[in-house]
Amino acid sequence: MTQNILLLPGDGIGPEIMAQAVRVLERLKSDGLDIAWDNALIGGCAVDATGVPFPQETQDKALAADAVLLAAVGGPQYDVLPREQRPERGLLAIRKVMNVFSNLRPALVYPELVEASTLKPEVISGLDIIIVRELVGDIYFGEPRGIEMRDTEFGNERVGYNTMVYSESEIRRIAHSAFKTAQKRAKKLCSVDKMNVLEATQLWRDVVIEVSAEYPDVELSHMLVDNAAMQLVRNPKQFDVMVTGNMFGDILSDAASMLTGSIGMLPSASLDANGKGLYEPIHGSAPDIAGKNLANPLAMILSVAMMLRHSLNQVAAADRVDSAVKQVLAQGYRTGDIMTEGGKKVGTVEMGDAVLAVL
Amino acid sequence: MTQNILLLPGDGIGPEIMAQAVRVLERLKSDGLDIAWDNALIGGCAVDATGVPFPQETQDKALAADAVLLAAVGGPQYDVLPREQRPERGLLAIRKVMNVFSNLRPALVYPELVEASTLKPEVISGLDIIIVRELVGDIYFGEPRGIEMRDTEFGNERVGYNTMVYSESEIRRIAHSAFKTAQKRAKKLCSVDKMNVLEATQLWRDVVIEVSAEYPDVELSHMLVDNAAMQLVRNPKQFDVMVTGNMFGDILSDAASMLTGSIGMLPSASLDANGKGLYEPIHGSAPDIAGKNLANPLAMILSVAMMLRHSLNQVAAADRVDSAVKQVLAQGYRTGDIMTEGGKKVGTVEMGDAVLAVL
Ligand SMILES: CC(C)[C@H](C(=O)O)[C@@H](O)C(=O)O
Ligand SMILES: CC(C)[C@H](C(=O)O)[C@@H](O)C(=O)O
Repeated sequence: MTQNILLLPGDGIGPEIMAQAVRVLERLKSDGLDIAWDNALIGGCAVDATGVPFPQETQDKALAADAVLLAAVGGPQYDVLPREQRPERGLLAIRKVMNVFSNLRPALVYPELVEASTLKPEVISGLDIIIVRELVGDIYFGEPRGIEMRDTEFGNERVGYNTMVYSESEIRRIAHSAFKTAQKRAKKLCSVDKMNVLEATQLWRDVVIEVSAEYPDVELSHMLVDNAAMQLVRNPKQFDVMVTGNMFGDILSDAASMLTGSIGMLPSASLDANGKGLYEPIHGSAPDIAGKNLANPLAMILSVAMMLRHSLNQVAAADRVDSAVKQVLAQGYRTGDIMTEGGKKVGTVEMGDAVLAVL
Repeated sequence: MTQNILLLPGDGIGPEIMAQAVRVLERLKSDGLDIAWDNALIGGCAVDATGVPFPQETQDKALAADAVLLAAVGGPQYDVLPREQRPERGLLAIRKVMNVFSNLRPALVYPELVEASTLKPEVISGLDIIIVRELVGDIYFGEPRGIEMRDTEFGNERVGYNTMVYSESEIRRIAHSAFKTAQKRAKKLCSVDKMNVLEATQLWRDVVIEVSAEYPDVELSHMLVDNAAMQLVRNPKQFDVMVTGNMFGDILSDAASMLTGSIGMLPSASLDANGKGLYEPIHGSAPDIAGKNLANPLAMILSVAMMLRHSLNQVAAADRVDSAVKQVLAQGYRTGDIMTEGGKKVGTVEMGDAVLAVL
């Protein structure tokens, strides 16, 4: 049966890097993989065309597809729009609609790119962490929220508020996802919370401990979020899999990816309960280099590999793409963001060429 | 008029490092500084003695004092206590009672200790950031909060929730404190929020922009918290002063201090509207090395300097203490945590001796 992929090129460098991912899909298809794809709008380009960042048509197509591949959204021209029209609203909406609660964000250092990091080689060489971030709950979506006039101890004034909230079912399902991820790796899971201050994360810790009974083979530890931020800088290799809520995950996963020094290399997967997913590079839309053939397409191509692995169940094809990326790095091809001494500097398309050549 | 200091040695290594700070105070006093001090209990030692982590007597003394010097609280034996009795409750309570809303946390790299960092020397040498963290508001203290049974989409189950909340007056006063801090330095202020998702931080950004009109000499920028976590790793020297809320500040300031590689060197100040303050090292109570004469007393001694500067208005004495610490580093004295090649390894007391010798 043909598996259907929805492509969302989005804004900035999005279309350019998506074009290279499509070349990879075309090759896999011509080699016999039974896939088909369609395009839709999200983010700023969707606002330009339809007035909203996540049009109904995109929503319908995303729900009908077997997997969704997203490049990047956003740009300075959209920052002046009212909140509901901003590109990132489209991102939050598609996550919620697809119910992709489990966001897997690897922070992986390729041997060839050790020098790209601001951290000392011995601290990050061989680094291989996955952060499992809960993606459809927490203070991102919690109600009540807003800005309103209130009588406070200081008088009548504006007050802004949001609600951090987790139910035990929400915590349980992300915990299962994290334990299962750890089982396939070094079997170490560190759950991050702020239980000494926040009740919502006290429940988080309690439920993670309850779920751990089903995974006796995984070594579970707990860390406070401030300490986790420190430990990522001090000794990131102590971690295998980390699991945390949406807000803490946003911060820690960005810090973790920057440890590698090459965020142009990092893909991500966001999965629902059935393994259907949304795949995207962790980098942004980089409007400053858009349209200049400068962007690194490898995170986008690695997102294709994650999609093949996690949603389409095409492990061999996923391995093939992953190893093609490793080979082009070994051959010395580098876009500007990962340029190292002696590397062959190439643009977006040429990097795509290099991947296609070894595929 | 005699200025009165309340000393809170607390738990773990607290009493040991406080003892060295007291030697510095004694020297300053014998050299003519008109100060006096008293002791009180906070944290685990207070629970042991009185059943609560912040006894009424400590509260009365803290409110009566001109400044409070705190070493550290907490230890594994207290983690089993009910929430209200945990040592960190004492810390949160004293901050709230003293209304020390402005927490100044410097992340400073001493030239002698550049190698202690996990980051490359060129990335952090000369690093000198101050993070201004709001300390008595936000989700730390927001109501409603708790864990309760609710009917959710998943059924009747436990739900944990907290409230992130800021009023414009709370934001305004911390913004003023941050702009004033920046004015005394390189005049660059970066305000950190998550305005693309959280209304509470949209108000934060709005009010910071309003306040900025009064500080035309300070260059204001804004950064999303996830990007700030990245930028601290990528290029921390781009920052001068950063200002953010209590929760984000907890995470970012710990990450920033770990960039220096020597958290045993970092003091902090928490100030109220009148400059009265609570001073403490940013490191914890380190129960594993307590009582072994291994702890680094320099962050505690530098907290004395901050206290002299910010609350007691004794700038000359503050400079004298700061420069004594610089001298002992230049002389090669090192506790274990900051040991470098060729350094003279010393214990807590010997490091105190060295400081006293140059004072
Ligand atoms: C754009 C923004 C809403 C989003 C988030 O905060 O989740 C982004 O930072 C991310 O991590 O994917
Ligand atoms: C101990 C804890 C409550 C405290 C905080 O979160 O504020 C600590 O992490 C700090 O930063 O001083």
